[in-house]
Amino acid sequence: MAATLSADEIFHEFKEHSIAEFFRKNSQMLGYSGKVRSLTTIVHEYVTNSLDAVEEAGVLPDIRVDIKEIGESRYTVCVSDNGPGIPSKHVGKVFATVLAGTKFHRYVQQRGQQGIGAAGCTLFSRITTGKPVHVKSATSKERYECDIDIDIKSNKPLVKNMATILAGGVAGTTVCGEFAEVKYENSDHGVYEYIKRTALSNPHASITLVEPTGKEVVFLRSVTELPKRPKAIKPHPLGIDVNDFVEFAHRSQSRKLSAFLVEAFSRMTSGKIAELKDVSHDIDLDADPTKITWSDAERVVKAFKQIKWMAPELDSLSTIGEKQIEIAIKNILAPKFMSVVERKPKVFRGGIPFVVEAGIAYGGESGKKVDENAKDGSVVEAEGNVLRFANKVPLLFDASNCAITEAVKGIQWKRYGIANFEEEPVSIFVNVSSVYVPYSGPGKQAVAKEDDIIEEIRLAVMDCGRILQRYLSGVRSLQLQESRYKTIMRYVEQLSKDLGEITGVDSKTLEASLKSTIEKKYNKLFADPEKEDASIAEEESETEEAEG
Amino acid sequence: MAATLSADEIFHEFKEHSIAEFFRKNSQMLGYSGKVRSLTTIVHEYVTNSLDAVEEAGVLPDIRVDIKEIGESRYTVCVSDNGPGIPSKHVGKVFATVLAGTKFHRYVQQRGQQGIGAAGCTLFSRITTGKPVHVKSATSKERYECDIDIDIKSNKPLVKNMATILAGGVAGTTVCGEFAEVKYENSDHGVYEYIKRTALSNPHASITLVEPTGKEVVFLRSVTELPKRPKAIKPHPLGIDVNDFVEFAHRSQSRKLSAFLVEAFSRMTSGKIAELKDVSHDIDLDADPTKITWSDAERVVKAFKQIKWMAPELDSLSTIGEKQIEIAIKNILAPKFMSVVERKPKVFRGGIPFVVEAGIAYGGESGKKVDENAKDGSVVEAEGNVLRFANKVPLLFDASNCAITEAVKGIQWKRYGIANFEEEPVSIFVNVSSVYVPYSGPGKQAVAKEDDIIEEIRLAVMDCGRILQRYLSGVRSLQLQESRYKTIMRYVEQLSKDLGEITGVDSKTLEASLKSTIEKKYNKLFADPEKEDASIAEEESETEEAEG
Repeated sequence: MAATLSADEIFHEFKEHSIAEFFRKNSQMLGYSGKVRSLTTIVHEYVTNSLDAVEEAGVLPDIRVDIKEIGESRYTVCVSDNGPGIPSKHVGKVFATVLAGTKFHRYVQQRGQQGIGAAGCTLFSRITTGKPVHVKSATSKERYECDIDIDIKSNKPLVKNMATILAGGVAGTTVCGEFAEVKYENSDHGVYEYIKRTALSNPHASITLVEPTGKEVVFLRSVTELPKRPKAIKPHPLGIDVNDFVEFAHRSQSRKLSAFLVEAFSRMTSGKIAELKDVSHDIDLDADPTKITWSDAERVVKAFKQIKWMAPELDSLSTIGEKQIEIAIKNILAPKFMSVVERKPKVFRGGIPFVVEAGIAYGGESGKKVDENAKDGSVVEAEGNVLRFANKVPLLFDASNCAITEAVKGIQWKRYGIANFEEEPVSIFVNVSSVYVPYSGPGKQAVAKEDDIIEEIRLAVMDCGRILQRYLSGVRSLQLQESRYKTIMRYVEQLSKDLGEITGVDSKTLEASLKSTIEKKYNKLFADPEKEDASIAEEESETEEAEG
Repeated sequence: MAATLSADEIFHEFKEHSIAEFFRKNSQMLGYSGKVRSLTTIVHEYVTNSLDAVEEAGVLPDIRVDIKEIGESRYTVCVSDNGPGIPSKHVGKVFATVLAGTKFHRYVQQRGQQGIGAAGCTLFSRITTGKPVHVKSATSKERYECDIDIDIKSNKPLVKNMATILAGGVAGTTVCGEFAEVKYENSDHGVYEYIKRTALSNPHASITLVEPTGKEVVFLRSVTELPKRPKAIKPHPLGIDVNDFVEFAHRSQSRKLSAFLVEAFSRMTSGKIAELKDVSHDIDLDADPTKITWSDAERVVKAFKQIKWMAPELDSLSTIGEKQIEIAIKNILAPKFMSVVERKPKVFRGGIPFVVEAGIAYGGESGKKVDENAKDGSVVEAEGNVLRFANKVPLLFDASNCAITEAVKGIQWKRYGIANFEEEPVSIFVNVSSVYVPYSGPGKQAVAKEDDIIEEIRLAVMDCGRILQRYLSGVRSLQLQESRYKTIMRYVEQLSKDLGEITGVDSKTLEASLKSTIEKKYNKLFADPEKEDASIAEEESETEEAEG
């Protein structure tokens, strides 16, 4: 018989969890599932933080990732950067408080957004090896090292063995951790691939990877120009919800609602204030913003949507850049052909700006490497040959859950000369940049399937596809001409003899004349292969019919 | 020129976020994305909590869900249950502290695990309408009502207008909230489908849905027996990690490690302690468990893995039950055929018990309803006709990310008589039960793709598939015989005439004799359709070749 419980008995055990405890129990949500994936997640978190920090200091990133195998499924990972360093009074929370960071309150595009990553690594080190992480850091004012552990129950850092480093050197941070239940593997989902793709999307960074074998792989920077630093911007009137509006208003220094609006929002002018007045007579623009009620705020937000606004400011977005992508693709994939586009920025959810860059590489190293080795229990998804990035960070997992995959797979590739997407030597590159990338989970491995974002990715990839299609049809036209040329040439000798017999003309003369005529025709074609596109296309479809 | 920042400048803005703030910014991670999905998420969270509470009190659940449209994309949702009620001193945290609850510390199977759901609803009400939720509750000791809001910055409840209710009545809880950015829609991902599936997997519950039109739909209970209450169990030695081991040991009351092991773990006997001693001589079983070091604990956990253990206790698992599933499927899908299996419990990650129930329904209402209406921007995934459940809770979203989908789609359906899975009137039902279901995200809409779980689902569904295959081959055999019978009968008259002319026998006599012979043969077949399976199968394949 099941005992029944009263409300008091049930609630006797009522407790609160820390967010660290939650993610300890659900570490798969942060990307810690499977040995190979877990190691990639660690490297991803540290490298992402390093790149953000170095760029914020305005220098070209030099990152070093050093991985050593120290036991069965047990490794140390060290990541060093030449960033501005971390003030010692903040270092504990950076590495051992989940949801702490410098990045929440600024409306600016960065790789990290959530303040989970580095603390998640410390959590994973603690639950798999019981060890703290070791951090060395140097700012312009101090240089120190220490051990940092996380108190899971309270989500608070435990900083131990803090020591000042006397020897000099440049600014920067190095973190080393020991992790079990991880594995280094040269697969599509492994660290090597992750670093390679990071180099692809950050051509201004130099990244050194020391593999467990001791082999040192250096991805040298291919451009020496720093990417344009994204500016923190004001929110766009179409990108605000009522809750945020009320919060901003209540914190306002302005005495009048109208002044608050102009001060707090981008694209807000006195002209627009007048329009607001016209749209909704119930809004008191002289009211005190710090006392605005929910329903008044709702009225304002609703009125925002009835007015035409200039597009959001785009200074908030930092793209990789067409030229940089081309250089990086050339260096890493060495394709026979590529085409890259950067679309104009768009918005999703009404007012959050984002921009899509896309590229197609064909031939050379392009195309999927089949992942034969990943048999360690980590779930390896078929990803096609789609290189996904968000804010320049490679996304290696959860492909099936991602707007980029959905957009790319939805394209009718036959139209672009790709008969079977999975089998041809083609790589699709997509980078989605935004102040706020809507990830589908806290592990940040997939872009949520927002309709506006999917559509924009489709358009970007199809732009590239059209250029690819012209290239492929040119290549195929050439191939067709070449094979015809050879076929015809094969008959020239016999034909000349037969014609000679019939006509009495010298067969050598006939042969020379025929050859010269044929060569003239085909040389012209080889020099300008696109010219016969239309006729070729017709013939190709005839061929298909004949074969069918 | 980009301004460069020093470490101090960067960390000037260092802040901590509450978990409520995190989920406010990332509400899509909790299932709040798209209007239809958001409404389903709200109903899901409240109904799940209600079912857990009512069952814990040991009574048959009576749940009422009442949805009213009060404006454009704006609804009220009320959910009432006949549970034990919530003590007033806990009610604030239940509805307005993310990660608070009664369910964390018990090793027992329940629908809710995380303490996010109901607080997530309050959060969503706050950010879309600025309103608190209203709660009425009655325990055996008190009855009251109040408004509950959430302070997002601190993740703390704000309880207002607390009032004692004087009128009598039975125990239970009602929560009402007002939500915007939601939509009621009769689609595969809507509330109606969610409730229908909840009724399917909880045949002991009576659930009433009042739709916004005022139409009342009652899903009456189809069984009156309460499901076996799952027991809280001790962890299995193979299901513990070092971190948990250290935590448990440090909290132990035992003076010796050996006593702690027997007390804390299931399947641990003095015989097993002796085996442990044999396996690892470095373990001091007389040591004080509260002082165990990480490396000692690591040694013990490693030794656990070298010993043979009895399977985990299964009292922790509460399944729906084969008979109950059959009754529910009959009531709701009215199929022409069904087959249901409950597999034996298995473990994943070495020692976490789980059990899979599966069913196949064919014909009747089985099969996918195509979702024509969901054009509101919510992303609707093609889900096939797979009804996914975890701990009896329907999973309507994130199908592509789910172990159940992966397992079902991986099956070669042709072998089981299903030529095209997407187009036949077939529904697959899968319920995964565990103390700890590894969800792939905090929205709990997909089971993480653990290899052990995928394999077990495959086996369960294939078990059902084999029975379906026999049924379908019987049906098809019958159809084939019938069509042959009709064809032959069509020629009997002419044949009799011709034979009569040739032989001089009366054609009527011949016709009667032929008909009787044919009927005899086919009647026998119709009575025992499986008998000719083999020959039919041969002929079918011949037919296919002839058609090809």
